[in-house]
Amino acid sequence: MTALGGLTAALDWIGLVVFAASGALVASRKQMDIFGFALLATATGIGGGTLRDILLGQTPVGWVQRPAPLIACVVVAAMVFFSAHILQSRMRLLLWLDAAGLALFAVTGAELAMSTGAGVVPSVVMGVVTATFGGIIRDILGGETPIILSREIYVTAALAAALVFVLSRRAGIGAETALMAGFGVGFVLRGAALHWGWSLPRYRERPGR
Amino acid sequence: MTALGGLTAALDWIGLVVFAASGALVASRKQMDIFGFALLATATGIGGGTLRDILLGQTPVGWVQRPAPLIACVVVAAMVFFSAHILQSRMRLLLWLDAAGLALFAVTGAELAMSTGAGVVPSVVMGVVTATFGGIIRDILGGETPIILSREIYVTAALAAALVFVLSRRAGIGAETALMAGFGVGFVLRGAALHWGWSLPRYRERPGR
Amino acid sequence: MTALGGLTAALDWIGLVVFAASGALVASRKQMDIFGFALLATATGIGGGTLRDILLGQTPVGWVQRPAPLIACVVVAAMVFFSAHILQSRMRLLLWLDAAGLALFAVTGAELAMSTGAGVVPSVVMGVVTATFGGIIRDILGGETPIILSREIYVTAALAAALVFVLSRRAGIGAETALMAGFGVGFVLRGAALHWGWSLPRYRERPGR
Repeated sequence: MTALGGLTAALDWIGLVVFAASGALVASRKQMDIFGFALLATATGIGGGTLRDILLGQTPVGWVQRPAPLIACVVVAAMVFFSAHILQSRMRLLLWLDAAGLALFAVTGAELAMSTGAGVVPSVVMGVVTATFGGIIRDILGGETPIILSREIYVTAALAAALVFVLSRRAGIGAETALMAGFGVGFVLRGAALHWGWSLPRYRERPGR
Repeated sequence: MTALGGLTAALDWIGLVVFAASGALVASRKQMDIFGFALLATATGIGGGTLRDILLGQTPVGWVQRPAPLIACVVVAAMVFFSAHILQSRMRLLLWLDAAGLALFAVTGAELAMSTGAGVVPSVVMGVVTATFGGIIRDILGGETPIILSREIYVTAALAAALVFVLSRRAGIGAETALMAGFGVGFVLRGAALHWGWSLPRYRERPGR
Repeated sequence: MTALGGLTAALDWIGLVVFAASGALVASRKQMDIFGFALLATATGIGGGTLRDILLGQTPVGWVQRPAPLIACVVVAAMVFFSAHILQSRMRLLLWLDAAGLALFAVTGAELAMSTGAGVVPSVVMGVVTATFGGIIRDILGGETPIILSREIYVTAALAAALVFVLSRRAGIGAETALMAGFGVGFVLRGAALHWGWSLPRYRERPGR
């Protein structure tokens, strides 16, 4: 992780924790041992932000010098390992944690890109990359179908969150308001899609027939 | 993308567009929505070149400052979303676009590596990496069998393209001729393999029985 | 690869060779042609170390300037292509080569991170990342189930190797002793798990029932 402002840093931490928990839940579905939980939680929690930092040239990546994010991911993994069996629906929780992480990393990824001087389009794309690649890495390592292929609104929610944040900032709105607005739009959109099964029109081979 | 000479830059752009189109066609096979198309097109179009730039230490990667390649990928994604249903054979077109991108990125990747002072072997390998990883990322994100496992000549065509280009340059041949020669060899080889089903001798468990 | 001390460099080379051989054996299981063997061997042999160097900011990665590791991987690929059919059990050999590479890269990865000034936790994590990602890349490219999902002790062995090495160094033990101790612990642990089917307690949905 790179140096971030106060609220951005806080949201980035929450994103890391919820993504780590979603990684540990995938490990629970695969009946892995506790160090398998730790690997999946860590890769999911820091994966998106690590890719973001590599693309921005912010290397060595932050956790090489400061171990706190790594320790947080391992602690989350251990908590899930010993408590996930009491949950009614792990898949449901996994999807909601992923939704929160998606909306959080979309705004913090975009904020970080803007802070390096990137324009509107690259900042939005960096938000989407940061938001989606933690989940992509989790699903690949866990041998699951990538969540980006799910029928409900997914990439769109990350895009909406990043876009609202970046355009708000460009319109002169303060960073904290823009962060919360972007996160709110992305999380509500993905949450509504999860709850009501919303999806955008999908490609069909022969529309109109 | 890093600063490239005229023809190299042009070929790199064409490679980006055809790979983006191949990514969008995978999205159409998975019946994704338009932003799923955009994600797959962008990841496929800029994936190979982005990995190349990271390996060469050319970070922040070019599209963080200049959004044109990103916009091009999204435009291609939208065009495919609204027109792919009129195609007779999307799989066939996907394979030919991939073939063109493969041969193009093999030479531009090798050229870029040479321009940073890399020798023959690393330049050829960088060409192969740039050429193959866009398609690898596309197939992983789309949940498809990786095209590198296909029975026809594939990795070999990228290798031939990069090798012809690098050896031509070392033999003192001009950049433009070498680029076209390498591209031609790679594309014809992969195209012939697609058309006639050519393959190299494959490993067999017990040859000679 | 980055500049390494004598024994570390030697162990890193052996890790590269055994991982390259494991990649070529996956290619043999998929009945690829010789250049498919070369791609899988090279990606597996240099994948973990390349990711390590990118995370540490050691770019351009070493093989861009010095081709020896690339050539070694291709030579290994060719040797496996022409000899794997005489093996009694390729899967068994693949697992043992992977075990050796796992323990070797766990200590060399951790050593390299420490040499850049990283603390205990990030150095251990870097060891685990270097050790596991070569195999992860191999299994993804080869379309195999990721070995990290296997039931026997795997991630744990890499963690043990890196931890023994890093703690030994911190306790003032010499680099060579620490390297051999870490490698020994990791390889014996993974080897015993392979031989006797050892596994840690796994997550179960309803423990105690």
